Amino acid sequence: MEETFVPFRGILNDVKGRIKCYRQDWIGGWNAGYRIFAPTTYIFFASAIPVISFGEQLDRDTNGILTAVQTLASTSLCGLLHSIIGGQPLLILGVAEPTVIMYTFMYDFAKNRDDLGPKLFLAWTGWVCVWVAILLFLLAILGACSIINRFTRIAGELFGMLIAGLFMQQAIKASTFQRGILLKNNSVLQGIVGEFRIPKRDDPSLQEFSTPWRFSNGMFGLVLSFGLLLTGLKSRKARSWRYGAGWMRGLIADYGLPLMVLVWTGISYAAANDTPAGIPRRLYSPNPWSHRAMANWTVIKEMRDVPILYIIGAFIPATMIAVLYYFDHSVASQLAQQKEFNLRKPSSYHYDLLLLGGMVIICGLLGIPPSNGVIPQSPMHTKSLATLKHQINRDKLVKTAKSSINNNETLGQLYGNLQSAYKEMESPLRFQPASSRVLKELKEETSQYTSADSVLSGLPVDTSVFDPEKDVDDLLPVEVKEQRVSNLLQSLLVGGCVGAMPLIKKIPTSVLWGYFAVMAIESLPGNQFWERILLLFTAPSRRFKVLEDVHAAFVETVPFKTIIIFTLFQFVYLLACFGITWIPIAGVLFPLLIMLLVPIRQYVLPKFFKAHHLQELDAAEYEEAPAMPYNSAMRVSLTS
Amino acid sequence: MEETFVPFRGILNDVKGRIKCYRQDWIGGWNAGYRIFAPTTYIFFASAIPVISFGEQLDRDTNGILTAVQTLASTSLCGLLHSIIGGQPLLILGVAEPTVIMYTFMYDFAKNRDDLGPKLFLAWTGWVCVWVAILLFLLAILGACSIINRFTRIAGELFGMLIAGLFMQQAIKASTFQRGILLKNNSVLQGIVGEFRIPKRDDPSLQEFSTPWRFSNGMFGLVLSFGLLLTGLKSRKARSWRYGAGWMRGLIADYGLPLMVLVWTGISYAAANDTPAGIPRRLYSPNPWSHRAMANWTVIKEMRDVPILYIIGAFIPATMIAVLYYFDHSVASQLAQQKEFNLRKPSSYHYDLLLLGGMVIICGLLGIPPSNGVIPQSPMHTKSLATLKHQINRDKLVKTAKSSINNNETLGQLYGNLQSAYKEMESPLRFQPASSRVLKELKEETSQYTSADSVLSGLPVDTSVFDPEKDVDDLLPVEVKEQRVSNLLQSLLVGGCVGAMPLIKKIPTSVLWGYFAVMAIESLPGNQFWERILLLFTAPSRRFKVLEDVHAAFVETVPFKTIIIFTLFQFVYLLACFGITWIPIAGVLFPLLIMLLVPIRQYVLPKFFKAHHLQELDAAEYEEAPAMPYNSAMRVSLTS
Repeated sequence: MEETFVPFRGILNDVKGRIKCYRQDWIGGWNAGYRIFAPTTYIFFASAIPVISFGEQLDRDTNGILTAVQTLASTSLCGLLHSIIGGQPLLILGVAEPTVIMYTFMYDFAKNRDDLGPKLFLAWTGWVCVWVAILLFLLAILGACSIINRFTRIAGELFGMLIAGLFMQQAIKASTFQRGILLKNNSVLQGIVGEFRIPKRDDPSLQEFSTPWRFSNGMFGLVLSFGLLLTGLKSRKARSWRYGAGWMRGLIADYGLPLMVLVWTGISYAAANDTPAGIPRRLYSPNPWSHRAMANWTVIKEMRDVPILYIIGAFIPATMIAVLYYFDHSVASQLAQQKEFNLRKPSSYHYDLLLLGGMVIICGLLGIPPSNGVIPQSPMHTKSLATLKHQINRDKLVKTAKSSINNNETLGQLYGNLQSAYKEMESPLRFQPASSRVLKELKEETSQYTSADSVLSGLPVDTSVFDPEKDVDDLLPVEVKEQRVSNLLQSLLVGGCVGAMPLIKKIPTSVLWGYFAVMAIESLPGNQFWERILLLFTAPSRRFKVLEDVHAAFVETVPFKTIIIFTLFQFVYLLACFGITWIPIAGVLFPLLIMLLVPIRQYVLPKFFKAHHLQELDAAEYEEAPAMPYNSAMRVSLTS
Repeated sequence: MEETFVPFRGILNDVKGRIKCYRQDWIGGWNAGYRIFAPTTYIFFASAIPVISFGEQLDRDTNGILTAVQTLASTSLCGLLHSIIGGQPLLILGVAEPTVIMYTFMYDFAKNRDDLGPKLFLAWTGWVCVWVAILLFLLAILGACSIINRFTRIAGELFGMLIAGLFMQQAIKASTFQRGILLKNNSVLQGIVGEFRIPKRDDPSLQEFSTPWRFSNGMFGLVLSFGLLLTGLKSRKARSWRYGAGWMRGLIADYGLPLMVLVWTGISYAAANDTPAGIPRRLYSPNPWSHRAMANWTVIKEMRDVPILYIIGAFIPATMIAVLYYFDHSVASQLAQQKEFNLRKPSSYHYDLLLLGGMVIICGLLGIPPSNGVIPQSPMHTKSLATLKHQINRDKLVKTAKSSINNNETLGQLYGNLQSAYKEMESPLRFQPASSRVLKELKEETSQYTSADSVLSGLPVDTSVFDPEKDVDDLLPVEVKEQRVSNLLQSLLVGGCVGAMPLIKKIPTSVLWGYFAVMAIESLPGNQFWERILLLFTAPSRRFKVLEDVHAAFVETVPFKTIIIFTLFQFVYLLACFGITWIPIAGVLFPLLIMLLVPIRQYVLPKFFKAHHLQELDAAEYEEAPAMPYNSAMRVSLTS
């Protein structure tokens, strides 16, 4: 992506690039067949569960004006629009925590004003959204996303780790965000620790809040959360289990997490006879068809009633939200398109930001909180599509290899067949040279095999020479099934949740906390910052094991001391960002601190680290040498 | 061991064999230094915790006449005697579940007799013990243990699996033993399921037994049991962790289980402020210095008061106990001396059975329940000593290799040094040819290296050619540190428990159930019956992984279908044995069913399986061909 600040040029480039592959986006997704349901279900749960939980939070903080129904509606609507007319379909949209914080803050401000009050709150947020949209339009048109070029791995991965940390905190205790802002009423959902306490909303004299039942609830919560966490993480690795039939392991790996939510929800009912109705605590959500939920549709009429001074004043929260969205949306998109994914279709930062502006206005007029690109769901989406592509390619190549073996062909012929089969599968549209590299690798591998085993090359192959089930895995590069179908389907499913609210209410809140923990842990592999932290704790006598596995290039090329210093710097910076989130209200602007990494990376770090070390640890496009392909770490997390 | 039924010959042979290595038994243990504390602590906990729990059971079933104090005293006393004057010091003694069942049965019989009653119960059991001892003396003198030769892997491993199953059941629910016999009063400790119920002993109107607190207790119990189970199993594998310094990983692997008992006991106090004193439930044991505990020492005087008819009648329970002890003691000893351990010192079945008779009399006169050789503790003891020996050998060889490398020696010189260092470490007493094989292997390895890397053999070695930390592991065979010190020390520690009862009472019962589960699981690796069951569930596409790991010979030499049929037969037989334990009273005689395997193996199985397949699956000494060394499976469980 070139750095351009000429008005509209970025948007036009994006549109031109994406329109060429638009048809293929749909056909490719359609061709994946039933398999597309695996990433769809995975990302649907990862998307819906936090949105429901944030909705619950809003419900309590806005006295029921905004609920999980509204957050689900916004997520579904924006996701739907984005999947159809959006630029980068790998991006996943949703109502995020910072939005919840900002809306809570605005409600606290509005509810005590005589000329605004709870009645005009939504109308006023409508005006805020109008301002946010205008700012986003300006940023998109002026090409502000070009700056994303300056965003290197260090910033993106630090942001990813920060979000993982905040998710984990949500699982354990009220997030720092909430702590900073909402300490005064202490009314938020509180993670597993909160399961031992009385929720503010409820009547403390209820039987289920007596000391023994609260303790029971907390302990039951621990069992359910850890149950989901342990079985959920285990099930994701089912493909490499040693026991059980292949199809079953595949099924568990693909649908294990949703399945475990069902299983643990079922277990939570096992004790129903012995406990009062409120044990364990379950999701609290209003009937979506209640009259309260209908108030939204009149917001646009009420916007006229907002006093002019408040319309102008709305600009102040709007700037904060705009900065936040600009940053979050772009970084989520960037993390979904990291180099190691070997994507072939172009990015679309400018156009997507423009579209986000449009969606913010729509949400504002409908009186629902707007959605933006979310982490870690967006990179999780890409990862799950890479697994999908891997499975499709693998199955095809295994089939080809098996038929070659059955036909008593030689190893040379077998590799030839594999190559042409692989060529057939390639997406017909190629915008980046990645795939040519991939082909080359396969060819090299072939010639290496055929020359080394020259004795064998004339003989028919059997499975002792080439075992399709084992050896095909090693031939396949990381590739992603880039399409729009999974995005569309998951948005529809999120929309369906509004109707399925009575079912969703059966999920215990403690299962939710377990899910948050799973998401935090699932977002870590492939993050080099995380891998480097692990490397620091690896016993020196065990470092050879890291080298035996597939590993990123820096492990061999950068001195260990340099890796330590670089990682420690990044870690201290992470703690600083974490600290910022504790400051009331201003805490939502922590992205500014992360943006500060751009000049630090460009002007300060080169003074402390050698250029080629920095290049290995944190390749920046504006630096001279071409970056190494970092797809090794990725490959581990896909095949394991 | 030759099959001899000439009176006294077996005992004499045993004494002659063991007396030669008696000095070395002590010196070898002493030379291991502080390292001996690792297996000692490990086996002390594995020994004390079930004994305490069985003691609790007796306490409830005999109205406090026998308590954990008596079971601990018996275990300590017999262990002490056995470690000093016993034959095979690898054998671990303890009060076992069948003993508890028999004593409960005898109490139920005695308490309602006017001329016996609770007062003369212990005196009567004294007479039972006298009969048991006489029977054991006869069996030992007549060489009954020679039959142990006929006991093949199929019987021993089936017995091991059965015990593992019963331990697991103890962790979950009342054991079947107890269910059969004690259903009427339902007063026993009941595993994790029992944590949700009201114990019979206690007053149901106590606050801690109200519905919510019982539920709290159960859930807390689940957290503590699974906490101990998961962290305990994890900690045992610490040596192969990737993270953390080597000494720390070693420490955790050696002392992880006891440490985790401490940690989870600590955690159980975290909620002390919010819960009544009885949550979670803890061990119930009387003060060892109370007057009740003193009644034992007068038993010998009261034995004169037992009516003559009861003295004669005592012969009936005595035969059952004698059969049980004969079988349990011998099989525990056999499982502690399996072929794959490559033991060098001789066995001592006959003499040990004679000694057991002596110990039974002593216990009877003291009014404490006797101890016998226990499973799975005895094989666990050998395994932990193999790990110890491995560590000692490894450290020495690594040191030798490192100094060779520092001296710029060649690979040939390095291997020479390793060989002489290894020779030095060997125990000076050798009774079996195992060690010569071991040396041969090392030599072969050496010549293979030196000829293959002939280019290198003239050059100084560096760590890329031979990395001592990695490569020494592969050179070392399985060997066991055979000595008497760990046995002696653990008996002393068990004795110390009597004084430490006030501390031990702080352990929650739920931690105990977790410990039972750990013991059941820890006893499985190395059991080929278990490995074959796993093999049945291994996906066909993953079987190559079994072949890639070290594996027993049968995997390659016996057709898969034969393995399936053999394993299924064994599994059905296991279920039958399990079923037997459900039958009241007669259930304790399940060993008879296992003994029946001897003729089945000898006369029936050869009709259904080919001789050389049987030989691979279940080598019997009385068959012609020399057995393959089965040390591969063992090696995995030691180094992993």
